[in-house]
Amino acid sequence: MIDFACKRFDLDEIVKCGFGLTKGEFFIFKNFFGRDNFCTTEEISKRTKFNLTTVQKAVKKMYEEGILVRRQKNLSKGGYIFEYKIKNKREIRDLVKKLINKWTKTVEERIDRW
Amino acid sequence: MIDFACKRFDLDEIVKCGFGLTKGEFFIFKNFFGRDNFCTTEEISKRTKFNLTTVQKAVKKMYEEGILVRRQKNLSKGGYIFEYKIKNKREIRDLVKKLINKWTKTVEERIDRW
Repeated sequence: MIDFACKRFDLDEIVKCGFGLTKGEFFIFKNFFGRDNFCTTEEISKRTKFNLTTVQKAVKKMYEEGILVRRQKNLSKGGYIFEYKIKNKREIRDLVKKLINKWTKTVEERIDRW
Repeated sequence: MIDFACKRFDLDEIVKCGFGLTKGEFFIFKNFFGRDNFCTTEEISKRTKFNLTTVQKAVKKMYEEGILVRRQKNLSKGGYIFEYKIKNKREIRDLVKKLINKWTKTVEERIDRW
């Protein structure tokens, strides 16, 4: 737990809020950790027991937030699917810090008009 | 109201918390604003209707936090009293921003160990 202006924050909460993830999406996010291999949304869906639509929505959000890297896998029968992997922890930390700095800047701007 | 990691903050709350002021002390703090003259704790006590002990405690805290400037007024019958004045708003803002940066640094350090 962290204090900020006399309010208590849980680190998970900060990360979840920072990336705009729902509770379920945050669960999927955490499920990516410690896995070094690329995987499809179907594999994630099986692993997390979340339905494919939820996983796809979560993965889209995480990809857009810069949390995941994506690669295209060509299928033998033609076409392709995307596979996803989480960035390394240092990169995720930097993303979270950027969000915090953005919040801090907003607070500072408000103080300048106080 | 300001958002920080999905929690809402009131600017007054941030200032109050930052300087470690109680509700009463914050009232006294706000009473200093817009007054350009030095005044004694007795005068502040009369003005705010807070008892002298509370005012003295509040003023001590605010002086230590760098919010107030103090000057010594010599009495004609010997001895002296202190008079206080609030620093200008720019200086107060800078103090608040310093506090916020200290909080932000703590959050960042925790993220580095996440």
